[in-house]
Amino acid sequence: VREDTDQAILAATRELVVEQGVRKLTVEAVAKRSGVAKTTIYRRYRSKNDLALAVLLRMVEEVVQVPDLGDTRAELTAFVGNTVRILGSTLMGRVMQGLSSYVSTDPELAVPFREKVVGRRLAEVERLVGLGIKRGDLPPGTDAALVHEMLFGPVYYRLLLSGQPLNEQLAGRIVDAALDGLAA
Amino acid sequence: VREDTDQAILAATRELVVEQGVRKLTVEAVAKRSGVAKTTIYRRYRSKNDLALAVLLRMVEEVVQVPDLGDTRAELTAFVGNTVRILGSTLMGRVMQGLSSYVSTDPELAVPFREKVVGRRLAEVERLVGLGIKRGDLPPGTDAALVHEMLFGPVYYRLLLSGQPLNEQLAGRIVDAALDGLAA
Repeated sequence: VREDTDQAILAATRELVVEQGVRKLTVEAVAKRSGVAKTTIYRRYRSKNDLALAVLLRMVEEVVQVPDLGDTRAELTAFVGNTVRILGSTLMGRVMQGLSSYVSTDPELAVPFREKVVGRRLAEVERLVGLGIKRGDLPPGTDAALVHEMLFGPVYYRLLLSGQPLNEQLAGRIVDAALDGLAA
Repeated sequence: VREDTDQAILAATRELVVEQGVRKLTVEAVAKRSGVAKTTIYRRYRSKNDLALAVLLRMVEEVVQVPDLGDTRAELTAFVGNTVRILGSTLMGRVMQGLSSYVSTDPELAVPFREKVVGRRLAEVERLVGLGIKRGDLPPGTDAALVHEMLFGPVYYRLLLSGQPLNEQLAGRIVDAALDGLAA
């Protein structure tokens, strides 16, 4: 039953974020939509931003590991492409936009976000870079943390700042530029 | 006098953002601190976020053009380094963190921000890339918009998402990776 209640709370949050974004979300509205008492929601979630983060973290859990494609460029492109697609065409982009000011200024949101979103993504890049070095696709000593920032930074720059589109070609262009260099 | 009033409003906003961040800023507090009536402030600024954006835009105007250093790598490193320094050690970083959710979701903030911050930065990268192509530092046809995203995306990824430090070495590492390529 506890899990059912949580499902109802998060489903309602998801719907409301789709309809009006994180900024206009209220715990009041989540209570009304889910049929769960406000006091019950507040026992589990500190604020509406906590609720939005919980929705975001559930979506991240569904993001699969990149399969072995035998080629590091293809694997990195698949990984970045997956993020571009999710941020560009699902609720996750809107949630990220609405939460970015909070994950950067509120430690109670920053800590779980960095651990479960940024940290997990870095771990997957580390795995792919390790594989790439073994295969000879990347030089020994390639800095996975830098690769991670060079590949995902431009995606979030579009989502949060420039407003440029998150389209299908983007991942390939970023990965090619990062691997081959712009001065080459 | 009109200009004096504006100076007072923006100085108070700046001080309050330094003390407590954009999230806790209120027009009420700006009125109290500046001695300017709330109604007068609202005649000029739609909201507290509008005030924070005005502070941000004033700071951007102070960011100087990159001088001719005779070498594109040095020029790009100086440009990115300047942004890293400003975001990492002045009020501007905090204002950007506090505003990122709004510039990505509220058109009334997105339009001036993209024009005056993102657009201006892109124009300067275009100028530097043009110079670099002329000098032979960059291949003809180098995509300045992509250079812009590859260089500044990782900086904002740190500021807004990963929380990794904006330190002195960062600009050089990003520019080297972007120009030379990670697979080189």
